[in-house]
Amino acid sequence: MFHEYDVIVVGAGHAGCEAAAAAATMGSKVLLATMNMNTIAQMSCNPAMGGVAKGQIVREIDALGGLSGIISDKSMIQFRMLNKSKGPAMWSPRTQNDRMRFAEEWRLALEKIPNLDFWQEMVVGILVEQDKVVGVKTTMGIEIRAKSVILTNGTFLNGLIHIGEKQFGGGRTGEKAATGITEQLIELGFEAGRMKTGTPPRIDGRSLDYSKMEEQKGDEHPSKFSFSDTKPLERQRSCFITYTNHEVHETLQTGFDRSPMFNGRIQGVGPRYCPSIEDKINRFSERERHQIFVEPEGWNTIEIYVNGFSTSLPEDVQYKALRQITGFENAKMFRPGYAIEYDYFPPTQLGLTLETKLVKNLYFAGQINGTTGYEEAACQGLIAGINAHHNVHGLDSFILKRSQAYIGVLIDDLINKGTNEPYRMFTSRAEFRILLRQDNADIRLTELGHSIGLASDGRLNNVLDKKNDTARLLNDIKQKKVTPELVNDQLHTLNTATIKEKVSIHQLLKRPEIHMHQIKSFDQEVETYLDKYSKDVLEQAEILIKYENYIEKEKQLVDKIEGLENYKIKEDFDYDQVSALSSEAKEKLKKIRPVTIGQASRISGVSPADISVIMVYLGK
Amino acid sequence: MFHEYDVIVVGAGHAGCEAAAAAATMGSKVLLATMNMNTIAQMSCNPAMGGVAKGQIVREIDALGGLSGIISDKSMIQFRMLNKSKGPAMWSPRTQNDRMRFAEEWRLALEKIPNLDFWQEMVVGILVEQDKVVGVKTTMGIEIRAKSVILTNGTFLNGLIHIGEKQFGGGRTGEKAATGITEQLIELGFEAGRMKTGTPPRIDGRSLDYSKMEEQKGDEHPSKFSFSDTKPLERQRSCFITYTNHEVHETLQTGFDRSPMFNGRIQGVGPRYCPSIEDKINRFSERERHQIFVEPEGWNTIEIYVNGFSTSLPEDVQYKALRQITGFENAKMFRPGYAIEYDYFPPTQLGLTLETKLVKNLYFAGQINGTTGYEEAACQGLIAGINAHHNVHGLDSFILKRSQAYIGVLIDDLINKGTNEPYRMFTSRAEFRILLRQDNADIRLTELGHSIGLASDGRLNNVLDKKNDTARLLNDIKQKKVTPELVNDQLHTLNTATIKEKVSIHQLLKRPEIHMHQIKSFDQEVETYLDKYSKDVLEQAEILIKYENYIEKEKQLVDKIEGLENYKIKEDFDYDQVSALSSEAKEKLKKIRPVTIGQASRISGVSPADISVIMVYLGK
Repeated sequence: MFHEYDVIVVGAGHAGCEAAAAAATMGSKVLLATMNMNTIAQMSCNPAMGGVAKGQIVREIDALGGLSGIISDKSMIQFRMLNKSKGPAMWSPRTQNDRMRFAEEWRLALEKIPNLDFWQEMVVGILVEQDKVVGVKTTMGIEIRAKSVILTNGTFLNGLIHIGEKQFGGGRTGEKAATGITEQLIELGFEAGRMKTGTPPRIDGRSLDYSKMEEQKGDEHPSKFSFSDTKPLERQRSCFITYTNHEVHETLQTGFDRSPMFNGRIQGVGPRYCPSIEDKINRFSERERHQIFVEPEGWNTIEIYVNGFSTSLPEDVQYKALRQITGFENAKMFRPGYAIEYDYFPPTQLGLTLETKLVKNLYFAGQINGTTGYEEAACQGLIAGINAHHNVHGLDSFILKRSQAYIGVLIDDLINKGTNEPYRMFTSRAEFRILLRQDNADIRLTELGHSIGLASDGRLNNVLDKKNDTARLLNDIKQKKVTPELVNDQLHTLNTATIKEKVSIHQLLKRPEIHMHQIKSFDQEVETYLDKYSKDVLEQAEILIKYENYIEKEKQLVDKIEGLENYKIKEDFDYDQVSALSSEAKEKLKKIRPVTIGQASRISGVSPADISVIMVYLGK
Repeated sequence: MFHEYDVIVVGAGHAGCEAAAAAATMGSKVLLATMNMNTIAQMSCNPAMGGVAKGQIVREIDALGGLSGIISDKSMIQFRMLNKSKGPAMWSPRTQNDRMRFAEEWRLALEKIPNLDFWQEMVVGILVEQDKVVGVKTTMGIEIRAKSVILTNGTFLNGLIHIGEKQFGGGRTGEKAATGITEQLIELGFEAGRMKTGTPPRIDGRSLDYSKMEEQKGDEHPSKFSFSDTKPLERQRSCFITYTNHEVHETLQTGFDRSPMFNGRIQGVGPRYCPSIEDKINRFSERERHQIFVEPEGWNTIEIYVNGFSTSLPEDVQYKALRQITGFENAKMFRPGYAIEYDYFPPTQLGLTLETKLVKNLYFAGQINGTTGYEEAACQGLIAGINAHHNVHGLDSFILKRSQAYIGVLIDDLINKGTNEPYRMFTSRAEFRILLRQDNADIRLTELGHSIGLASDGRLNNVLDKKNDTARLLNDIKQKKVTPELVNDQLHTLNTATIKEKVSIHQLLKRPEIHMHQIKSFDQEVETYLDKYSKDVLEQAEILIKYENYIEKEKQLVDKIEGLENYKIKEDFDYDQVSALSSEAKEKLKKIRPVTIGQASRISGVSPADISVIMVYLGK
């Protein structure tokens, strides 16, 4: 019934959609298998994309030719650049999205990819022959053959939903859990674990009193994720901010004895940085209040997402406590919050391509690897999709370095350090975050995305133009000088030192107080000149000038550390013969089998001393 | 957690959505309980509304103030008035719809109704106290109280999906079945049965060769369902027609030994007029081919519905046979067709308000009553919703007569005759179908809908205008005469007899060959006069003139038969004392307990002789 596919992607969430889109766009024959074609690309949790560190990932996905940025732009109802008051390494784009539009745009985008087929049915197992995956098996017993398989099962593997003392099987509320795959993978030798995540109640927005809350509007000049020509927003919807209080906390505590989090019923480890409200009031009992971020679910729907109020307390406790929040006095719930436990596979069982070490041509991406977040899932899907395609076609592995992308940091962290709790990206995880900015994701990655046939020619040309323009601009403004007579009045107004002689614009821009738009106001000729450049190029140039020293320093660090990456370690290297290695290091190194000294150095349990020993042994 | 509702509606398909919208719009406090808020108003089967007799029902729902017409208009991608070559009793509007838009428009429309709350969870039982329903119980064990409950469970009650020899529990493919309710109702004394329906495979439209099929475009001047001001279509998508052939039939036959339809595994009775393809080739083995109607699922999606190819044969047989259909040589499936068995409750257990006889304030609507079709379900939901509201507020029952609406025919048929197979509406079921036209649904029903607070003032005014205008126009064109000199040339061209002396336009319009637009072309003055009237009014007048005699005759018949409806029978009438009644009639009459002689006369098993006996007994 089916021909053999190059790649079968199991699951159509953020990871599965990116994986399928990437592999098919690059030319693989791809089948996307999903339990329900009506629920492709659901935003299972909050209706937003991006945010701190996560927004950078979306920009990187977009720069490489993935679709999350485009879909987010098409479905956004609000855009904000977070952390604009901090340095550009911290600037993080975030969109609020229309949940229904997001899912529909993804589906329509996938349907436009010629090499991509769809199959609606639950996959219950993989076909394995001689340590290689060769296809999947469905509930109906259909066997579909493929040269590689990407599993992106999200929270569906033996998903178990908790609300107070009640438990139900399910992959999301109202949807079935997926069974069979975990058991089979364990039998094949995989180690599996259990994680937990949660979601807040959904509320009828008509029942809220927004006048008692703080409005949070979108940016006055909203930007967007994609470097391609998606349209910016013309109107936006606001979010609202309110807070819990002592009364809310007391009410919530009345449910603690029935909480599956506290009575041991939930065994899976939850996301530390996205805790449930009961967790927050338990761990931070000194806090008087916690912020509640009220997010609309779309342009027109009345449904509201109560960010910050994730909970698995009994529904009556949820309800009572909700109504004690300012503005929520008459709140009506559509459904209670819940916790969900699901199977994951410690990602130390994967290589940098996200291929499993035990079964060849089998890839894992997304929550199945112990991550949390749409963006973290999407970028893994993208990398797995690219590598599955490369693998099928005998091409080199596609690996992003930690100095190239947050995506590189994420995967390197996962496969080397593993994770004991749902892994979420932070800027602090990236040692080169001044290089890995959202503004230069295209410059960092689009040429690469184009070279593998994923990013379009149009995208490449845009980036080359941006690079050339930026270089020209940087050069010009080093030459372009302004006189004290022309600028001193304004410098004075800006609270910055006046100049005594002619200085270049370049020099002025190095001052933190002076920005490109102020330079423009110096003089008509300067303005006319700068107006020849796009907003992006002007911004890029300003960042490169202002942060030149930091950027330069970080680049040197990269060079130094990349030296270690050039020291290759053979796959069959015998760590046992290196007697000076600590036994923990030996064990971990034998398990992870790092490809380079650099990678070895990042494995948890491998100390700098161990690294020295190996380098000595290798004669380096 | 919940206050007491006036009405709880269980299920958010076509029946549940109309029920909830009607009761809430009229002022009841309504809770709509659904297993998944993301799957409200799914078109589970084909992406179309209306058609022969069904289109009339949608127009009636709309005229009363229900929403199916508006939603269909908002989501339509094609409009056709079927049977335009036949008499106006047969004209039947039909839309092709965008499946995603349809569901979204319903959800957004429901969200706009102030009295309507939502709850996402499976209802597993009803609360009954002293033979009255007082609420529902959910999977989480939550009890929600209400003055009345409407069950619209569709195919979900103990739903069992069949594909070849495989069976799965499920309410639709990929969705859970609902359990608990049937068992409880049986315990309460209800009789339950099992029905079956089916759906064809869904196809990737990119894999079809439309050049080998026959294109079916929408109407050149597309109309719409709603009498309100929904927008007509500006562009349309085409459907396509192809046929099965001998080869296809032979292939399908190879699966007959594994067919759940033929090997007895399916016990439920299927819809005779919407048979599976295997049923068609089995029952009509002499037919060389069967028509396949290829329907797009939306404006942009590539998904295709293969109308006419409903099947539960093994998926490999489905696939092989599909590819033997002209134009389907390379067809790719998204999912196979399947049959689904589900519980229903013989509708003779209901009164004309759709309230159950056994449990007060409990209503059933839709497939749970053994019907098939979106339109049949929607109109039952509407009637149940109106009556639940009336019941709660101590108002009279809302019952449409067989002479007033197809909806009246449907409910009267159901509760009096019951049904042994999924009940579908046909024009032949309506004895007064010349009166029950799609063009006059507003004239028949909007005043009624307005009087109960459902149809808006705007709708009422439109109808009153239409009635007045039509009356004025009819009067005027009786006066307005044309001369032989003016019209004879054109009458000759139209192949109709010329006139010898002045005749009224009215007289000319009685001729079948002459239509309003031709009358307009007679003369500038006539045209100017007629152009003062809307298209609808001109059409209405023409129908009333042309079919005057038929309409008059049918009206007389209605009067005669309605005489019988005026003979009331007391609820506690003792049929046992009427010795001359046949024993079958006695049994049926005691079970149904008709309210009038008219109703008694329509009960299957009650003969005209039985009716005479009762009338004699009642002294009439």
